[in-house]
Amino acid sequence: MKVLVLGGDGYLGWPTAMYLSNKGYEVAVVDNMIKRYWEAEIGVEPLCPVRPLPVRVKRWHELTGKTIGTYIGDIAENHRFVHKVLQEFQPEAIVHYAEQPSAPFSMMDRDKCVHTQRNNVMGTLNLMFAMQRLNPDIHLVKLGTMGEYGTPNIDIEEGWIEVEHKGRKDRMLYPKKPGSFYHLSKVHDSANLEFACRIWGMRVTDLNQGCVYGADTNETNMHADLGTSFHYDAVFGTVINRFVVQAVYGTPMSVYGKGGQTRGFLNIRDTLQCVELALLNPAERGDFRVFNQFTEQFSVNDLATRVSRAAKSLGYKAEIDHIANPRVEQEDHYYNALHSALPALGLKPHLLTDDVLVHMLEYAKKYLVRIDPEVLSPSIKWKQK
Amino acid sequence: MKVLVLGGDGYLGWPTAMYLSNKGYEVAVVDNMIKRYWEAEIGVEPLCPVRPLPVRVKRWHELTGKTIGTYIGDIAENHRFVHKVLQEFQPEAIVHYAEQPSAPFSMMDRDKCVHTQRNNVMGTLNLMFAMQRLNPDIHLVKLGTMGEYGTPNIDIEEGWIEVEHKGRKDRMLYPKKPGSFYHLSKVHDSANLEFACRIWGMRVTDLNQGCVYGADTNETNMHADLGTSFHYDAVFGTVINRFVVQAVYGTPMSVYGKGGQTRGFLNIRDTLQCVELALLNPAERGDFRVFNQFTEQFSVNDLATRVSRAAKSLGYKAEIDHIANPRVEQEDHYYNALHSALPALGLKPHLLTDDVLVHMLEYAKKYLVRIDPEVLSPSIKWKQK
Repeated sequence: MKVLVLGGDGYLGWPTAMYLSNKGYEVAVVDNMIKRYWEAEIGVEPLCPVRPLPVRVKRWHELTGKTIGTYIGDIAENHRFVHKVLQEFQPEAIVHYAEQPSAPFSMMDRDKCVHTQRNNVMGTLNLMFAMQRLNPDIHLVKLGTMGEYGTPNIDIEEGWIEVEHKGRKDRMLYPKKPGSFYHLSKVHDSANLEFACRIWGMRVTDLNQGCVYGADTNETNMHADLGTSFHYDAVFGTVINRFVVQAVYGTPMSVYGKGGQTRGFLNIRDTLQCVELALLNPAERGDFRVFNQFTEQFSVNDLATRVSRAAKSLGYKAEIDHIANPRVEQEDHYYNALHSALPALGLKPHLLTDDVLVHMLEYAKKYLVRIDPEVLSPSIKWKQK
Repeated sequence: MKVLVLGGDGYLGWPTAMYLSNKGYEVAVVDNMIKRYWEAEIGVEPLCPVRPLPVRVKRWHELTGKTIGTYIGDIAENHRFVHKVLQEFQPEAIVHYAEQPSAPFSMMDRDKCVHTQRNNVMGTLNLMFAMQRLNPDIHLVKLGTMGEYGTPNIDIEEGWIEVEHKGRKDRMLYPKKPGSFYHLSKVHDSANLEFACRIWGMRVTDLNQGCVYGADTNETNMHADLGTSFHYDAVFGTVINRFVVQAVYGTPMSVYGKGGQTRGFLNIRDTLQCVELALLNPAERGDFRVFNQFTEQFSVNDLATRVSRAAKSLGYKAEIDHIANPRVEQEDHYYNALHSALPALGLKPHLLTDDVLVHMLEYAKKYLVRIDPEVLSPSIKWKQK
């Protein structure tokens, strides 16, 4: 199967590209490298040095004999580029990671908010129109986020909900309550895509993904040059990754507020597995299908305790600190999110064991000298004044 | 009260500005005149000639002694302009009509779709940030549309719904199923605004308006130079306005498909009344309040029959024709939309009587020589191939 990976230079895009390439898929990646610019703009870098895409692709070819095609361009600003790539590569499926991925980044200021929504929403619109024009049979596997749902007081279903109201029923898109302008951009994407399925008969799988943790996959482990963009800073770093680096650096793990915030989590290896399961079991024409993509639910306090326990086993102090919550969110709430569609397709989860955490801590330790403690503390606040 | 009307050159913005000015509000309008450009681009014009904004404002001053301030600029492309206007005028309330208002326009092609969502969503984001920065106490009265809801099989509530699910309950944003990229842009706006109320304590009234009909208000009737931008074409014209012009021109009224499509409708005079009621009864800080703004529900067949009856009384043939539906929509569906909040605040509806229709037909007759029959037929199709 020919698969185009959009955002193929990123934390998940690059490991996905290698994973699929290794399994025999014909893979090409698209990226505009803007994430590297955003990193420079706010003064952060991934924990492990990330080689330029051409170096990684070349190394991949040397090690495996396999080729990953590359297209450098901006899908949000240049719709002709999107057309060109689809015409040249003729993908059967597209995995779409090419979005600004950080909630805090989107909350920095007006500029970053507008940039996030414009980049994410317009990029996806350009893609939809190109697919519809050139080949509406392409299966789009789009990365959404569990954060689109927020923390409702009812169970979170997988994208759709049967609503019974005043004696009548309908199957409706699950009502969302996202927690940042970034999460909102994904809500907008989902609404646009559901419409495109309805009117154009597109086939879309929207993967509402939980917080991903980890840095290593079978492919990133093959060579130092193949490592992925693991962030630990308060802007691009997900919570487990950040806690692990704080533990290794010897600074307390910073829990925002009470720490009762509960979310879904998954290992980076399971992201790759889930994406492949979606590709192997495509949505039907006209179907806007939503999977909740995570394997376990934890509160932030649970996570801090788990990372602390693993870190202490390696001799770290691993203290936990509760700091003022920079976000506006419920810190103590009901949370029960369904996630049975991907297991039903065969997902075999890699759970968050102490072994996994020890491995992550050892990974972080290798790059100890590169850790910048300044970027661990949240500087972006949801309430602007 | 100082009220800023965004989109103050438009079909509803201009009559709103005059109505409020007449009632003693201190009014300024903002517009970038892009609607006039879009009209030229697709080759249509309002039925009655619309004078340039400075001419209308001058005439208004001559007739009433009242001043309507004007700011010409683009709120979507120029956030500094938004800041400048808010700083200079210091509004206590903002009525926001400054969006691309046509569903067919948004469905023309990729360019018009992206333009619609960028213009509408980014303009509102710029506004939100400016309000939050300069004066979060300003009451925003934002025009949405009943089309955000689509045609669900359950009753349409006013923006929010109490969902009972698996033995638990929550009050959630009403799940939407919009019918075009334009309607989607309003859904995105609503989601962004609900979030801003939640995190910044903004106060917002989202007016989900039905299809507006009519051209005359007490103020537009004061002088020919004060007329509003009444469209009858298949792109910017709402259905009743179009039927009236078809009847007068002597071409059959074109019902799309079966005509069982049911929607909410209101007289342009009631738009003005509703906006004022919202201004007089502002949302609380932190409240994202939604009103369904229409007075009556009709199917398209009902409307055609009513217009036909009124037109026949004036001696017109007034035939009804069912043509292939250019849209993708249900043509026979359940529809029951609540609309009790505005009547509870004192709305006194102007209903769609034969008298009202006769008056509209007479208005259209005055401009018979300006009617271009070419633009009455829908040329934009929802299914692009």
